[in-house]
Amino acid sequence: MTHYLKGIAASSGIAIGKAFLLVEPDLTVIKKSITSSEEEITRFHTAKHEANRELQKIRDHAADDLGDEHAAIFDAHLLVLSDPELLGTIESKVKVDNVNVELALQETANSLIEMFEQLDNEYMRERAADVRDVTKRLLVKLLKLEIPNIALIDEEVIIVAKDLAPSDTAQLNKEYAKGFITDMGGHTSHSAIMARSLEIPSVVGTSIATSTIKNGDLIIVDGNNGEVYINPSKEKMDLYIEKRNQIDIQKKTLTLLKNKPTITLDGKQVEVVANIGSPRDVESVIAHGGEGVGLYRTEFLYMERDTLPSEEEQFQAYKQVLEKMEDKPVVVRTLDIGGDKKLPYLNLPKELNPFLGFRAIRFCLENQELFRVQLRALLRASNFGNLKIMFPMIATLEEFREAKKLVLEVKDSLKEKGFAVADHIEIGIMVEIPSTAILADQFAQEVDFFSIGTNDLIQYTMAADRMNERVSYLYQPYHPAILRLVKMVTDAAHAKGKWVGMCGEMAGDTIAIPLLLGLGLDEFSMSASSMLKARNQINQLKEIDMKELVDKALFMHTSEQVMQYVIDKINPTS
Amino acid sequence: MTHYLKGIAASSGIAIGKAFLLVEPDLTVIKKSITSSEEEITRFHTAKHEANRELQKIRDHAADDLGDEHAAIFDAHLLVLSDPELLGTIESKVKVDNVNVELALQETANSLIEMFEQLDNEYMRERAADVRDVTKRLLVKLLKLEIPNIALIDEEVIIVAKDLAPSDTAQLNKEYAKGFITDMGGHTSHSAIMARSLEIPSVVGTSIATSTIKNGDLIIVDGNNGEVYINPSKEKMDLYIEKRNQIDIQKKTLTLLKNKPTITLDGKQVEVVANIGSPRDVESVIAHGGEGVGLYRTEFLYMERDTLPSEEEQFQAYKQVLEKMEDKPVVVRTLDIGGDKKLPYLNLPKELNPFLGFRAIRFCLENQELFRVQLRALLRASNFGNLKIMFPMIATLEEFREAKKLVLEVKDSLKEKGFAVADHIEIGIMVEIPSTAILADQFAQEVDFFSIGTNDLIQYTMAADRMNERVSYLYQPYHPAILRLVKMVTDAAHAKGKWVGMCGEMAGDTIAIPLLLGLGLDEFSMSASSMLKARNQINQLKEIDMKELVDKALFMHTSEQVMQYVIDKINPTS
Repeated sequence: MTHYLKGIAASSGIAIGKAFLLVEPDLTVIKKSITSSEEEITRFHTAKHEANRELQKIRDHAADDLGDEHAAIFDAHLLVLSDPELLGTIESKVKVDNVNVELALQETANSLIEMFEQLDNEYMRERAADVRDVTKRLLVKLLKLEIPNIALIDEEVIIVAKDLAPSDTAQLNKEYAKGFITDMGGHTSHSAIMARSLEIPSVVGTSIATSTIKNGDLIIVDGNNGEVYINPSKEKMDLYIEKRNQIDIQKKTLTLLKNKPTITLDGKQVEVVANIGSPRDVESVIAHGGEGVGLYRTEFLYMERDTLPSEEEQFQAYKQVLEKMEDKPVVVRTLDIGGDKKLPYLNLPKELNPFLGFRAIRFCLENQELFRVQLRALLRASNFGNLKIMFPMIATLEEFREAKKLVLEVKDSLKEKGFAVADHIEIGIMVEIPSTAILADQFAQEVDFFSIGTNDLIQYTMAADRMNERVSYLYQPYHPAILRLVKMVTDAAHAKGKWVGMCGEMAGDTIAIPLLLGLGLDEFSMSASSMLKARNQINQLKEIDMKELVDKALFMHTSEQVMQYVIDKINPTS
Repeated sequence: MTHYLKGIAASSGIAIGKAFLLVEPDLTVIKKSITSSEEEITRFHTAKHEANRELQKIRDHAADDLGDEHAAIFDAHLLVLSDPELLGTIESKVKVDNVNVELALQETANSLIEMFEQLDNEYMRERAADVRDVTKRLLVKLLKLEIPNIALIDEEVIIVAKDLAPSDTAQLNKEYAKGFITDMGGHTSHSAIMARSLEIPSVVGTSIATSTIKNGDLIIVDGNNGEVYINPSKEKMDLYIEKRNQIDIQKKTLTLLKNKPTITLDGKQVEVVANIGSPRDVESVIAHGGEGVGLYRTEFLYMERDTLPSEEEQFQAYKQVLEKMEDKPVVVRTLDIGGDKKLPYLNLPKELNPFLGFRAIRFCLENQELFRVQLRALLRASNFGNLKIMFPMIATLEEFREAKKLVLEVKDSLKEKGFAVADHIEIGIMVEIPSTAILADQFAQEVDFFSIGTNDLIQYTMAADRMNERVSYLYQPYHPAILRLVKMVTDAAHAKGKWVGMCGEMAGDTIAIPLLLGLGLDEFSMSASSMLKARNQINQLKEIDMKELVDKALFMHTSEQVMQYVIDKINPTS
């Protein structure tokens, strides 16, 4: 029996608790001849009854927690479950074909789904999804299996899953989900980023967690070292309980820095700001002493729903963030979908290499009506705080010029209609494509600011998908080529009096921070929970020493060499 | 009716001929109740008979053209087709279940395939593929459809396909395939590269060629402008026949340069060399006056087969190329699979972003036994010519060091065993990942040469999949960021006395050539058919002017601006 798993440390901290496996059951249906169709139909009625009860429960739960709007989907499911025509077809199929009800159910559902999907009608296509969900639920009951439901967890657990989808993490209740472990993913996968944002200790990329851990196993998740212990010894438990307490004490010490500036020992002041995904996250930004929002990922407004968000919905969200942040800067990134972030309702074609595909600004410039809606909402909200607009995935100056032109057009048209729009709104770009870093001197003449998106910049510069475990060793933030790209950007920006932020994972990394200070980075944007630690680290460094440090690092040969050098010189605590 | 299609000009020249549609038929099987099982079985026997006759014909054809070894696969298919157990099961299924023979065939075949595939035995898994192929052939006959067979074309045609797989292009007979048109692909897709290498005028990425063009339509393919005319007017035809004649005359003029050096008007000599995929291509390199081979793509040795090539097979191939090229340099790139080049028999896991995945040197360093076989074959062949070894997809110095160490180990061990190995073999790398171009100064201390692979370098630098039509506008060889990366490499190499080649499509591009001369590129590697045109162009330029040209281009804002500037200054003929 395996008692230990090694994975990738995705979110720091120690969690101890019982395992909860979030794994989809195998629903393969096999055709069987039957002896009594009566018996089959009775089995079907029982399953239907159980599914109905379960759906009612989930529906009520969703209505309580998230509001009736979010519960509506389950009403639709309940409707399918009571559709006499569907049920009749299944039952008569059992009788006529003399087959097991699982097969009758699946075949009936499939032909219904196929019919719905062929219709050129959004509403009917959604019905196909409903039928699919209900069929799955019924099959689970018939096959005596269980679908684990993340929303129904009501005790403290460690979640163990192949991977966590945004729909899973959206349902995560921090009260009960004390840690999580996944088979897939790397340091910057969606689940890892969510874990850090929720401050849930996590280990990802273990490959075998779901096949090794059993429901109810006692688990220690060591999110600092990427280690998992399964049913540990008493000594191990005591050791980790002690470690957990230590971490709690450290956290309390850091809160003293909450309303302090971020400033090196030799007086260089920088900004420590937060990455957020929704207005709900602002609370945590303020609680952790954020000096602003360095990256508001607006795509979450577009995800986990069936239609595009309206201008008004978006306006309300942006306004809320701006108001809550008072006059602190809020950098809003325009819609960045594609890559690993899909919007099923847009029916975008599948791509062979989505990370190199039709995403972000590329998509928005081709879908200007959709883009204008977002820009209108943003500009209307600009009057309620300190808004800065940032375009993602800019690869060429033409793209920036076209996007900026749209902003100005929308601004003029709003003003004409009598809306109040802030006078000066900075317009900047993400630097996450190598071409843009390399040509930063030309961009610096036209943009108001840069924000370096290291997650993507590193994966393109090293030509390695950061989500792909087989090449994740090439995700090297300290590689001298990455440092040189950052330097191209900071040097070019400062020569034109512009500022440079960084909103990738690297900005909150204790080994990267000294290097980035040396390179002249002005703004460090990270998970809210990392901000105080970063401020604490910066406040103990000298800019002049960091410049010397990075001048050496820029001419080193490998990432490993840079890392070792920083550790030897600075001894950053991780 | 559409008479005109616009696509991407993939291979220059004009082709005129009748359309041959290479499109897979729809083989969906629907369950039907039948009245007479006798009738079904008669249909089955007829289909079997037809399939048998067809397979015999293909088998003989393959044996004549490619040798008995390649025909063996069809012998295996004929064997399946006469397997009494398989046939018996199908026939009894028709009788017992009272279903149409298509369904009986498919269900029987599927369970057989599934059984074979589950066995942990390479041989049996291959049988699964045989059964699948034969089933498909039988279904086609039963459904009265046709599978177009590229190998059976025996008149001059324009091939029209969704895309061409390497297995298709391998079977292309230049005698009959006068041009081709595809729905998918871009300027550097496999089919485009093959088209240029075979000098077949081609237009790719038309999106709708297969749904617009009918078998037998008269077609003009304008591979210079990416245009296709369907059943054109008499005037159009005469115009294009005249154009085609002009092109023939130009080609004849260029052959005068065959044995001349490549040297600018002010005396800077460079090398024009060829990209090849197999020993067969050497003939064309010599015919077009190649000064060497700048890129021998060894992966074709591994493709279109069911097992890895042996050391002896590889040795023979490498030796043949080296001998035929006499003492001219031959740069052999070690195995570059993954990305868009798969080897099904290695069963590599599917990746979300294969272009950013586990490919080329990444794969070889993890599969050292396989890699050592290739290195042994290469080093044994080194004694027969002027071999240079090149590693693809190098992202870090560690990778280069590890690969080079393996070469030296294999060399020592071969020498110990008494094999003759050339004394000095240059070991270099492809520069196709941004990190390596950016860190070229550090690499230059350790490699013997660089060869810039622009196809990949551009797609990573711009973060745009060059095969994806929706972002193909971002494949910008003249983008100042790309020129800057090339400059980083040439400057770094020359500072250490190393040479720099380029083996991407850009090296043969008439707009890029002046810029690359200005950047100091030493070796231009391209399709054999482009070499004389490139030499002709270089011989008419002055290096000093090109340096001035590129110094301006490096500080331009966009690719468009650079392109326009070069056209204005040089007026390169395309």
